[in-house]
Amino acid sequence: MSSLEPDQRRAALLRALHDVVGAAQVRDDASTLERYARSTAARGTRPVALVTPGSEAEVVALVKLAAAHAIPLCPVSTGKNWGYGDACAVGDGQLVVELSRMNRILQVDAELAYAVIEPGVTQQQLSDYLREHGLPLWMDCTGAGPDTSLMGNILERGFGHSPYGNRLQHVSGMQIVLASGDVLHTGFGHYPQARTTHLFPYGVGPFLDGMFTQSNFGIVTRIGLWLMPQAACVNHFLCSVERHEQVGALVERLRPLRLDGTLRSIVHIGNDLRVISGGAVFPRALAEGQSCLPDALRAQLRARAGVGAWTVSGALYGSAAQVAAARAALRAALKGSGASARFLTERKLRLGALLGRMLGQSAAGQRLRAQVAVGQSLFAMNRGTPNGRFLAGAYWRRRAGLPAGFPHGADPARDNCGLLWVSPILPMRGADVLAVHALVEPLFRQHRFDLFVTFSMINERALGGVITVAYDKEDPDEVERARRCYRACFDALMQAGYLPYRVGNQSMADLDPDADVYWQTVAGIKAALDPAGLIAPGRYEPARAGAAVKDADSSGL
Amino acid sequence: MSSLEPDQRRAALLRALHDVVGAAQVRDDASTLERYARSTAARGTRPVALVTPGSEAEVVALVKLAAAHAIPLCPVSTGKNWGYGDACAVGDGQLVVELSRMNRILQVDAELAYAVIEPGVTQQQLSDYLREHGLPLWMDCTGAGPDTSLMGNILERGFGHSPYGNRLQHVSGMQIVLASGDVLHTGFGHYPQARTTHLFPYGVGPFLDGMFTQSNFGIVTRIGLWLMPQAACVNHFLCSVERHEQVGALVERLRPLRLDGTLRSIVHIGNDLRVISGGAVFPRALAEGQSCLPDALRAQLRARAGVGAWTVSGALYGSAAQVAAARAALRAALKGSGASARFLTERKLRLGALLGRMLGQSAAGQRLRAQVAVGQSLFAMNRGTPNGRFLAGAYWRRRAGLPAGFPHGADPARDNCGLLWVSPILPMRGADVLAVHALVEPLFRQHRFDLFVTFSMINERALGGVITVAYDKEDPDEVERARRCYRACFDALMQAGYLPYRVGNQSMADLDPDADVYWQTVAGIKAALDPAGLIAPGRYEPARAGAAVKDADSSGL
Repeated sequence: MSSLEPDQRRAALLRALHDVVGAAQVRDDASTLERYARSTAARGTRPVALVTPGSEAEVVALVKLAAAHAIPLCPVSTGKNWGYGDACAVGDGQLVVELSRMNRILQVDAELAYAVIEPGVTQQQLSDYLREHGLPLWMDCTGAGPDTSLMGNILERGFGHSPYGNRLQHVSGMQIVLASGDVLHTGFGHYPQARTTHLFPYGVGPFLDGMFTQSNFGIVTRIGLWLMPQAACVNHFLCSVERHEQVGALVERLRPLRLDGTLRSIVHIGNDLRVISGGAVFPRALAEGQSCLPDALRAQLRARAGVGAWTVSGALYGSAAQVAAARAALRAALKGSGASARFLTERKLRLGALLGRMLGQSAAGQRLRAQVAVGQSLFAMNRGTPNGRFLAGAYWRRRAGLPAGFPHGADPARDNCGLLWVSPILPMRGADVLAVHALVEPLFRQHRFDLFVTFSMINERALGGVITVAYDKEDPDEVERARRCYRACFDALMQAGYLPYRVGNQSMADLDPDADVYWQTVAGIKAALDPAGLIAPGRYEPARAGAAVKDADSSGL
Repeated sequence: MSSLEPDQRRAALLRALHDVVGAAQVRDDASTLERYARSTAARGTRPVALVTPGSEAEVVALVKLAAAHAIPLCPVSTGKNWGYGDACAVGDGQLVVELSRMNRILQVDAELAYAVIEPGVTQQQLSDYLREHGLPLWMDCTGAGPDTSLMGNILERGFGHSPYGNRLQHVSGMQIVLASGDVLHTGFGHYPQARTTHLFPYGVGPFLDGMFTQSNFGIVTRIGLWLMPQAACVNHFLCSVERHEQVGALVERLRPLRLDGTLRSIVHIGNDLRVISGGAVFPRALAEGQSCLPDALRAQLRARAGVGAWTVSGALYGSAAQVAAARAALRAALKGSGASARFLTERKLRLGALLGRMLGQSAAGQRLRAQVAVGQSLFAMNRGTPNGRFLAGAYWRRRAGLPAGFPHGADPARDNCGLLWVSPILPMRGADVLAVHALVEPLFRQHRFDLFVTFSMINERALGGVITVAYDKEDPDEVERARRCYRACFDALMQAGYLPYRVGNQSMADLDPDADVYWQTVAGIKAALDPAGLIAPGRYEPARAGAAVKDADSSGL
């Protein structure tokens, strides 16, 4: 249809979209386009329109329509991939296919502990469902907030908080719309009589699920997600070291416990600012026009929050006896390290809440109530009840501060937060934590930003670093500094072999500097499954990541 | 080169092979061809020659040579895929590429607990290496015997005995020779500077590892394999139920413990014959010409072995306190079930061995010594020391009985054992165990074979069934009955939705009765990666599984 004029092409596309999903589910008004072009990065990309299909059959029809109209599709679940590109496509001019209306919880099996969900199912929704139905199951949840898609995070290979926090290992049986319009069922799912599609992920023959994560090979419309049986006992533990250098030894002491299965959940090791930013924004009034905290102020905030340079946060699950054994192992491991674990139990939290109320409006009462509130949020997260509180860091440099009602309905992209994440993977060793910190800390200082960093024990051998560049989007100079700071960190870490586990749209093109065999292979598979390159061109597809922009520019839409 | 005469083609191929690997590593003498055509199935397939490359570079050269000579390659690790096709290709006339000489242990990291190994590394070899170097690590091992390849089993998605028994979840970073001759490094391995290739499997971008298991997309030449830190305490547990029907309730009681992580290792639930066959073959003299045990004799053997209808076998790992907590949970779960867990500890085994020696040649002494020997083998397996003892079942119907020196050097294919495995996956529910048993038991009876069956808790939600057809290969009638029995079981289970986790060559063509989208997708990827179809044609490639035979027949080699 490329011989038609742009306006005609556009009109034909919209008519065709109306036929597929109904006019109400297609939007190309200025405000919608503006909304979907929003990004916590310096600039987002502009879609040609937004379409919100309500079923897999409509997704199939959209894929066929995309081929007929030569229009690239950008599938998103709920479009809340904040800090990694949000709802934006890699290039301008793509048709955003938001799957938020496909939000059915199709099945929950209490006995074998799994759910089958669609892309629009949010963390809050599944959590509510389990509670309302009185099911003895917990899901894993992330700190990304209640309204984010479970599937969207999993397909980006996000990680959570619980023993099921290595999320991809807890998926079994996907359903995927391919560019051809065919629907692929993975695992055993392609055998209609299968009984174990959601119980045994591998099926028979090549195991394909991994291919459809961080990829643009298809549009996933359904997954089986494993849930945890509720544990009789949960203890949250926190421990803190005073000085920065001590974090190395701390990691060395904790690693054996993660390796041997004593610590089965994702353990998070965050710096002071991760805690400080948990309920506060940058104190502009006190910072004398600077964009990062003066040392003295930082020390003051650290003291007020009662934390050291680094804080470890994790949870123990099991029977009372199992948790007691794990507590003993943890105590023994930390003995003599200068760090000691504090254990939060439900009982302690109830007592703390009571005491906090009794202390009234005194400073001590306020501090205790704040601590109890954090403890309660952590406890809730451990049990799969999501909480927006942990999004506060995204608002650090926002001039208007935290929005009214925060954390309810938090949305960093809508709220014009400046947020970029650099997410290197490192060996689970103290020396590597110190090395990564030493690499990025001077870059943050040079670009005048506060360094927020968490290292999470995402499996038994590796740490996932999440380094936040939080910046003021209303200050063009700061936007540019943020972009440079991100880029400097990304490059330095990449060069040093601390590669990212996940990247935002701005870095897709940089993933393949050497035109290597891996990316050639990925391109070969893409060509086989989607020869016209219509599904999310450029997404984890370095060679096309630049070209997608050009194509869109020349499409005239 | 197809215009040449067969003899000329063959001669040219052999010359080219000599150039690549040297004459000593190419064999096409009658005895070699005979050896590599051996199978525990009714009949194997005949290779055109055997080549044993010594390096990845030679594998690359072989792949290019295969393209030039249009000769299909059948890569095998050590060629001991007994009961599933052994070293045989799916079709005749393929060039068997055995990677047994590529047996380097390239790296072992004691701190982060992993090894990097080549395809030829055997279970015994890695186990010895860890012991000899005094490394505080255990590998997961299978019952397939000391001389089998670790990688070969993992690429077929075999499972083991320990907390690392879900083997594919413990692989990170593969190296793969593609049909193009390119070498693909998965995970982060394609970035030369990567530090976490063997610590974080996913890398960035589509996660491809699963694609290269149960597939013919490439020749894997290297993997990173995670090892367990040695546990301070291991207890093996055994429990048994008297009557068949009780196994359902037993599974129901154990499932919650597997689901909640109390039982972290693979738990095996075997029927009486699994235990009885552990050190004995079919008692022909007592069975009055029958090919399966008369009921009275079976009852007698069961009593002599001191087992009930079903026996559960598993292990607990951890600190003394953690193991004690798990023991308590296991005891509580079994209370009132009629089954009670017996725990084997190292101390008990030492005492038993002492007592066994003291009892001398008495019947009690012999029985105790036999029990201690089994216990020691189980303990060794839990700690990654392989043992051929568990191969005894393959010899059940062999006329000559167990070979001299058994289990040392056991090799069911060489020893002309008749052995076929049917391996359905079922939900981890008592009802499904009883249903699968009720499906296959009458088929075994009808075909006059003893039913050997194990259900293994291969993950938290599914059981992997291993059903053995052990038959006398010297009796043509029994060979035919075995083939029919296998086929009847395979079909019945497939139809009932209990799909196989793995199949032998004889069933590759039957995996895709409906020409479904999954297998079309697999074929599309194969066409992209190996357009000439030269790597293992027919292997987990149903459409080509029949054609491979025809191609080979018409190649004239």
